[in-house]
Amino acid sequence: MNELKNILEQVKDKKLSIKEAILKIKKKPFEDIGFAKIDLHRKICKGTNEVIYGASKTAEQIIGIIKTMVSNKQNNILITRLQKEKKDIISKKYRIKYFSDAKIGIIGQKNSASSGIGIIVVATGGTSDIPVAEEAAITAEFFGNKVVRLYDIGVAGLHRIMAHIDDIMNASVIITIAGMEGALASVVGGLADCPVIAVPTSVGYGASFNGLSALLSMLNSCSAGVSVVNIDNGFGAGYIANMINHMETKK
Amino acid sequence: MNELKNILEQVKDKKLSIKEAILKIKKKPFEDIGFAKIDLHRKICKGTNEVIYGASKTAEQIIGIIKTMVSNKQNNILITRLQKEKKDIISKKYRIKYFSDAKIGIIGQKNSASSGIGIIVVATGGTSDIPVAEEAAITAEFFGNKVVRLYDIGVAGLHRIMAHIDDIMNASVIITIAGMEGALASVVGGLADCPVIAVPTSVGYGASFNGLSALLSMLNSCSAGVSVVNIDNGFGAGYIANMINHMETKK
Amino acid sequence: MNELKNILEQVKDKKLSIKEAILKIKKKPFEDIGFAKIDLHRKICKGTNEVIYGASKTAEQIIGIIKTMVSNKQNNILITRLQKEKKDIISKKYRIKYFSDAKIGIIGQKNSASSGIGIIVVATGGTSDIPVAEEAAITAEFFGNKVVRLYDIGVAGLHRIMAHIDDIMNASVIITIAGMEGALASVVGGLADCPVIAVPTSVGYGASFNGLSALLSMLNSCSAGVSVVNIDNGFGAGYIANMINHMETKK
Amino acid sequence: MNELKNILEQVKDKKLSIKEAILKIKKKPFEDIGFAKIDLHRKICKGTNEVIYGASKTAEQIIGIIKTMVSNKQNNILITRLQKEKKDIISKKYRIKYFSDAKIGIIGQKNSASSGIGIIVVATGGTSDIPVAEEAAITAEFFGNKVVRLYDIGVAGLHRIMAHIDDIMNASVIITIAGMEGALASVVGGLADCPVIAVPTSVGYGASFNGLSALLSMLNSCSAGVSVVNIDNGFGAGYIANMINHMETKK
Amino acid sequence: MNELKNILEQVKDKKLSIKEAILKIKKKPFEDIGFAKIDLHRKICKGTNEVIYGASKTAEQIIGIIKTMVSNKQNNILITRLQKEKKDIISKKYRIKYFSDAKIGIIGQKNSASSGIGIIVVATGGTSDIPVAEEAAITAEFFGNKVVRLYDIGVAGLHRIMAHIDDIMNASVIITIAGMEGALASVVGGLADCPVIAVPTSVGYGASFNGLSALLSMLNSCSAGVSVVNIDNGFGAGYIANMINHMETKK
Amino acid sequence: MNELKNILEQVKDKKLSIKEAILKIKKKPFEDIGFAKIDLHRKICKGTNEVIYGASKTAEQIIGIIKTMVSNKQNNILITRLQKEKKDIISKKYRIKYFSDAKIGIIGQKNSASSGIGIIVVATGGTSDIPVAEEAAITAEFFGNKVVRLYDIGVAGLHRIMAHIDDIMNASVIITIAGMEGALASVVGGLADCPVIAVPTSVGYGASFNGLSALLSMLNSCSAGVSVVNIDNGFGAGYIANMINHMETKK
Amino acid sequence: MNELKNILEQVKDKKLSIKEAILKIKKKPFEDIGFAKIDLHRKICKGTNEVIYGASKTAEQIIGIIKTMVSNKQNNILITRLQKEKKDIISKKYRIKYFSDAKIGIIGQKNSASSGIGIIVVATGGTSDIPVAEEAAITAEFFGNKVVRLYDIGVAGLHRIMAHIDDIMNASVIITIAGMEGALASVVGGLADCPVIAVPTSVGYGASFNGLSALLSMLNSCSAGVSVVNIDNGFGAGYIANMINHMETKK
Amino acid sequence: MNELKNILEQVKDKKLSIKEAILKIKKKPFEDIGFAKIDLHRKICKGTNEVIYGASKTAEQIIGIIKTMVSNKQNNILITRLQKEKKDIISKKYRIKYFSDAKIGIIGQKNSASSGIGIIVVATGGTSDIPVAEEAAITAEFFGNKVVRLYDIGVAGLHRIMAHIDDIMNASVIITIAGMEGALASVVGGLADCPVIAVPTSVGYGASFNGLSALLSMLNSCSAGVSVVNIDNGFGAGYIANMINHMETKK
Repeated sequence: MNELKNILEQVKDKKLSIKEAILKIKKKPFEDIGFAKIDLHRKICKGTNEVIYGASKTAEQIIGIIKTMVSNKQNNILITRLQKEKKDIISKKYRIKYFSDAKIGIIGQKNSASSGIGIIVVATGGTSDIPVAEEAAITAEFFGNKVVRLYDIGVAGLHRIMAHIDDIMNASVIITIAGMEGALASVVGGLADCPVIAVPTSVGYGASFNGLSALLSMLNSCSAGVSVVNIDNGFGAGYIANMINHMETKK
Repeated sequence: MNELKNILEQVKDKKLSIKEAILKIKKKPFEDIGFAKIDLHRKICKGTNEVIYGASKTAEQIIGIIKTMVSNKQNNILITRLQKEKKDIISKKYRIKYFSDAKIGIIGQKNSASSGIGIIVVATGGTSDIPVAEEAAITAEFFGNKVVRLYDIGVAGLHRIMAHIDDIMNASVIITIAGMEGALASVVGGLADCPVIAVPTSVGYGASFNGLSALLSMLNSCSAGVSVVNIDNGFGAGYIANMINHMETKK
Repeated sequence: MNELKNILEQVKDKKLSIKEAILKIKKKPFEDIGFAKIDLHRKICKGTNEVIYGASKTAEQIIGIIKTMVSNKQNNILITRLQKEKKDIISKKYRIKYFSDAKIGIIGQKNSASSGIGIIVVATGGTSDIPVAEEAAITAEFFGNKVVRLYDIGVAGLHRIMAHIDDIMNASVIITIAGMEGALASVVGGLADCPVIAVPTSVGYGASFNGLSALLSMLNSCSAGVSVVNIDNGFGAGYIANMINHMETKK
Repeated sequence: MNELKNILEQVKDKKLSIKEAILKIKKKPFEDIGFAKIDLHRKICKGTNEVIYGASKTAEQIIGIIKTMVSNKQNNILITRLQKEKKDIISKKYRIKYFSDAKIGIIGQKNSASSGIGIIVVATGGTSDIPVAEEAAITAEFFGNKVVRLYDIGVAGLHRIMAHIDDIMNASVIITIAGMEGALASVVGGLADCPVIAVPTSVGYGASFNGLSALLSMLNSCSAGVSVVNIDNGFGAGYIANMINHMETKK
Repeated sequence: MNELKNILEQVKDKKLSIKEAILKIKKKPFEDIGFAKIDLHRKICKGTNEVIYGASKTAEQIIGIIKTMVSNKQNNILITRLQKEKKDIISKKYRIKYFSDAKIGIIGQKNSASSGIGIIVVATGGTSDIPVAEEAAITAEFFGNKVVRLYDIGVAGLHRIMAHIDDIMNASVIITIAGMEGALASVVGGLADCPVIAVPTSVGYGASFNGLSALLSMLNSCSAGVSVVNIDNGFGAGYIANMINHMETKK
Repeated sequence: MNELKNILEQVKDKKLSIKEAILKIKKKPFEDIGFAKIDLHRKICKGTNEVIYGASKTAEQIIGIIKTMVSNKQNNILITRLQKEKKDIISKKYRIKYFSDAKIGIIGQKNSASSGIGIIVVATGGTSDIPVAEEAAITAEFFGNKVVRLYDIGVAGLHRIMAHIDDIMNASVIITIAGMEGALASVVGGLADCPVIAVPTSVGYGASFNGLSALLSMLNSCSAGVSVVNIDNGFGAGYIANMINHMETKK
Repeated sequence: MNELKNILEQVKDKKLSIKEAILKIKKKPFEDIGFAKIDLHRKICKGTNEVIYGASKTAEQIIGIIKTMVSNKQNNILITRLQKEKKDIISKKYRIKYFSDAKIGIIGQKNSASSGIGIIVVATGGTSDIPVAEEAAITAEFFGNKVVRLYDIGVAGLHRIMAHIDDIMNASVIITIAGMEGALASVVGGLADCPVIAVPTSVGYGASFNGLSALLSMLNSCSAGVSVVNIDNGFGAGYIANMINHMETKK
Repeated sequence: MNELKNILEQVKDKKLSIKEAILKIKKKPFEDIGFAKIDLHRKICKGTNEVIYGASKTAEQIIGIIKTMVSNKQNNILITRLQKEKKDIISKKYRIKYFSDAKIGIIGQKNSASSGIGIIVVATGGTSDIPVAEEAAITAEFFGNKVVRLYDIGVAGLHRIMAHIDDIMNASVIITIAGMEGALASVVGGLADCPVIAVPTSVGYGASFNGLSALLSMLNSCSAGVSVVNIDNGFGAGYIANMINHMETKK
């Protein structure tokens, strides 16, 4: 608000004409008034300015963004959908930790896992869902959450889910990741008493139609408490889980 | 086969020239030769000529078909998708037992349930799936099967399924009927060691797209042993289950 | 757990043979052992056994369920998708408060709104989305949340959203409800720093394809922090928002 | 059940407190009671733990699984969707028989074909459907079934089907495999009096939409007795056919 | 061409200025030159100006069109998709023959059936397809074709098709009409040696998706010689069949 | 801008403390600063605040909105998708001119048609498209455009289009409205040298899939200069056409 | 018929018992009686046994089929969807004429073009449609038809169509081939008075959805006389056009 | 019109018989009479004959077209969807300026930007949309428009849009280009008072279904004034924007 106050003081002191003041206020209304607040706020809580979506950017573009971020004191940076080739180029300039399953690169370090309300469970139906799951898990860890991984617990073998009933029942948030028929979300959603984020994956063939089957299945879950993100969107799920797992820090 | 035999005897007895015989055999080759075998065979085993699909027929048309069937010694007749109004008209001519949930009418009586290998379980995810389930169950009963109904055991409450684990594990065939996310087929398929016929239903709203969600889900079931019939096709499932449950009678 | 304890005590006291004990434990494993825990737990936290989905049930069936619930000390009951005609029948037996926009009936009363972390904002793109929004809002209120309604703030008039920037930025959870192009979720998701539950609605015509357009739009939201429920699923959104807004009560 | 008996005996002998007993029983309810039974049962009858789905696993992962299975006395192993490259690596460690059309590898040997009720017919519409058909046929043979292959008997040349009328009419189960319009299932279903498993294939172009056309066609079959599995899912069909063809072994 | 000749003669005779002539020629270039030929031609051969598509027109609008046509010496008129209510109003002004199955009304009379090359066969898979079939058949008859109706010869009972093998093999053109899996087109196309027009119908339920299943099936027919018209478009099929059956009259 | 100027003058004159000024500016930033400009601007040029979308509003709600608009000196109001029943109720309070084809009601009067650059042509493929066309035409007239209606000039009879070649070539903007195959847009787009707004309609049956066919066809138009609005969105097309036809008034 | 005659003679001569005769007749009913007639007939008229669909066959398989055909006096062979690489291998064994645009190979020679009723016009909307058009054109030529090619006459430039109005109006059959919006079929269908076979192509991008747009457009053609084949199915169109263009040879 | 005038004068002067005149007029009716006007007209205003769609043409074909155009005094030529490899070949014959992002090549030069009414704004949601945006921008520049590029102003960060509010509000036409949820069109459409052309892009993954999500979203825009072109069709948008921005030149 300082800049607005400044303008007004200059008006009051007649150092600035009213016409000039109107122009100034009009010119940057959003940064100075409403939106500045937003951006400040975002930096503290939301963390999205710590994230680079690497999919459609060149290594050079990513390096440019890192540079700007670092110069703005953003030392911990999460880069998603980062192909190995790009990572190799970036690593010549910046020390980067690379998670090849998740296709995530991290500059700096993950936040402390002690800050969340509880534990985030990341569960998958099969082993083919693991890359998406790792994207979710490492995203959640980056933002400071403890993550328990329950991989390959698909509903065709219910005992595999049941073997982890304690983890499921004690979780703060659960991310269920499955392709094919996507039934995991409903089964886990029925057992858990916490929010469940469902991630359909493009794993499958034929009538899975690249994840459509799992997507529709999850949207129609008969278990209350299940919400859905885009197909293969592990990052999105990890990000929302982090938000929910840090709810108490708000007040 | 009588007619063919007749022709041959006439040839043998020289009452019929070879040319005339060829003509006769050519003229009705299918009824008399190959297909007659089929039809005879079907009558004994397959039973579809005991069934009338009532959906798009008028009461009068149905009465006409019944008449023909009865005159052909077909005394037990199953009429599916029979609306109550049509049933009321038919019942003036024929004694008909009507199952209003299943929208099935039966002339004559069901076959004895003692003939099958074992028990057919008909399971539904919710209460709204019951009309489809009843169509399946009564069809199965009509053809002589013992049916156990497990209704409203959707995967959101796994304990409801588990309470019936014995029925599921002892079944000869299981018909799983579910709308929405259709996960029941996979969960039951994972528990059972018998063939599972999955029936998606049009129960649901929004992204269930009139049963598409459940259909895709069931086709993508990660449980081996699950095959699928058309949306809301309770009759088809009951019919197949009957076939499977009478496998040993073949030899 | 009492029953299991009982059995064990009887074994200890030799009033029950080991064989009999095994039988008893096997017979009701789910209610008594594992799942009882679940169900007990659910009653306290999750609340789904307080909810009746009224869409495909007759008034009589609903009355039956209410009866059972009341006899189980469940005095506050939420009935969703309850048509007015059914409500009129039920109200002859039970005192029921009816919300006609939301098509929700409540037996007993809503929980106190003081229990949640913060405020749940329910925002709609247009006035036609209000029935879905009311389903979400009253569900959230029923479970004990303070709800702020921001209706008709569609993105075509950004100033309408901006006029409520404080509510959006202070919310604990936001439910965004929109048909047609469903852009509200992305815009609000970009402004807020809390979880956003997006509900596509079937409002629209032509290429909205009964909500498909809004659904896809919301699933593809470029704003992190947005998850999606089924088309027109106000209840689901309200239920999840409640879960998130009560996160701190878990520890 | 031994472990449960053990716990109870310890209680009886006062070597274990009731509280400790409750904990133990709660902790592993599924393995010890219900699920143990399931898993044991599955091993004997269902055979799915003899199968590795190779599609999304590395050669190394597959070798790891084989190792575990072999060490658990599982000497006959079926590996589906196994690319030649992976097979070459695996064959350095294990003797593996490879079926290049079916993309199936077998460790050990197929079961004896003498165990089934009758013969499984595997029929295709065209020659392009053969890889899927071989997956079905070899799966069925692996589990101990006699298989008759009827390839390239598409409905455009009805005489090709008719030339095999005896095989079709004597089959115990028929697997019909077709892309494009998928009519084979209906025609064969009309001729046969046994269960028909229909496998749509992605063979075709244009409006076949990668198998959607054949899939919908088969789901809408006017022949009773036809159920459907996922597009190109030869394994699933072979597995179900095996189940049905071994029905009499159940009692 | 008379009018153009006229204009030129007037120019030659200097009764018309060049500027006026240009205007006249520009004003009606299409009727007078190219298009006039077309329209004249169409009247003789194509017959579409004898047809009124009644679906979205009021009885009054239809009467108006009939009036114009009659005043232009068009005495035989075919009105398709004519609801009974509209027919009743029209019949007060014009003598109209109404075919209630086909929802066709005919003013005047059908053309003589003797003009075609041969016979048009109209075949349906089931009885529910008859309304579409009658639209096709009566359209074909109206334009002067002999029609043989083969109804309810669906592929599930191949012997029903075979019983009519002579009609199929002697046809000049065959119209195959089927809903559900639409396999009739392929089977008939394989038997016949004449052009086959396939009409998918909206008959069916569930995964027939209002005719989509039959439509895709027919487009993917493996029988050469099959072309397809819109779902339920009996008129279109009858019209094309007529064109083909009158091919020899062209020279 | 007056209010902002006012605030600043009060600051300058020390009638308002800086803190109070900040509060005021923050409180209504959008109306007062950026958005006020927008809204003022919109009122003059864009005209959307003269429009009520009547589809999902009650007559009472519409009356309320009219009241507010009239009190804000908005005397000419366009109400779209207004059913006759609602119109009858509104007409008791306000003088309303109703166009039953277009389902449009107008309070006050249309703007003068003299203001536009040129003429807007509204063309339809068939007579069934007229309601959508009238919605477009009356919308365009309301905003002050001269409209030429070319109805029923579908591409199956090219001479019908050609008869109006002068109108098409002289138009300032053309709105092409067609269902079924929607080819009109491409043909007209090829003839015209002005922007073409294409409106697909839900007219048709079967594979028109409620306008999807025309929509896709128009989006794929090979004629440059064609853009598309939603299915049946006559208002949108009329509104855009008006914008384009008033382009020169901008400078 | 010889074999049947033989059997009957043996019966007459009492060399064969009636029972044996029945068995023999039953065993090969289709080849000997009904279907033999079909196959003979097909060879003369239909010509499909002169065609090899090369897409999914290896060069070796194709060579094998050619060998069989040649040994059966089938000297003129059309091979469709034949990739250049396969052609090169085949050409080492057989003299083959290769059309690289059409991806067609011909062994032997085309039939004389003099046999048809008239001329087949093959028209395309753009230059990208030419490969499909050539498949159609060469197929038609192979079966003995005179073909006129009208390429790149898309509806965006109506004068390009009009420049060929005589060809269109004099054609015996027209094949219209277009991607994108597929409007060519309707425009040509409106001008012509002969059957029009429409071939949608996968040419286009975005909302053409690989030919779906053109397919739906053509199915919804408002021009009577248009029927449709599968996307990119040039062969099918050429084959049907040939059938129609040889109609008079039937009698 | 000269040629027609010539013919008429020759008739008047009796240098041409009427019969010859008819023949001449009939022979080239379209170029000479109606369509000549079109083509002449098009050259001046529409500019499409200055454009080559390069996607499915070989470098050689493109060179051929350029040659013809240049010989017809068309010196400025825009080639869209031109891959670098083809450009390299063409550049050996013609001086060509290549824009690698846009995949556009220009022979000659862009038109002067001073001719339009105002400024065309090209805005994108993200950086991945830039190639499509550049296609639009350079197309608009080629035809003589001043273009302002606003890239990466997606709705998730509303302040990015607001920072450019002046450009948006002062634009003559705005092209909004976005993939994923495509909300940019609605937000910009709500702020602007000029026509908005929306271009959905295939940017995104999963449920973006290659641009379907953005396409539907844009078609359902709640902002009046938005029309839509095909997915990734930057050229089309630039072309229409140019048309609109040159509206005043028409009179």
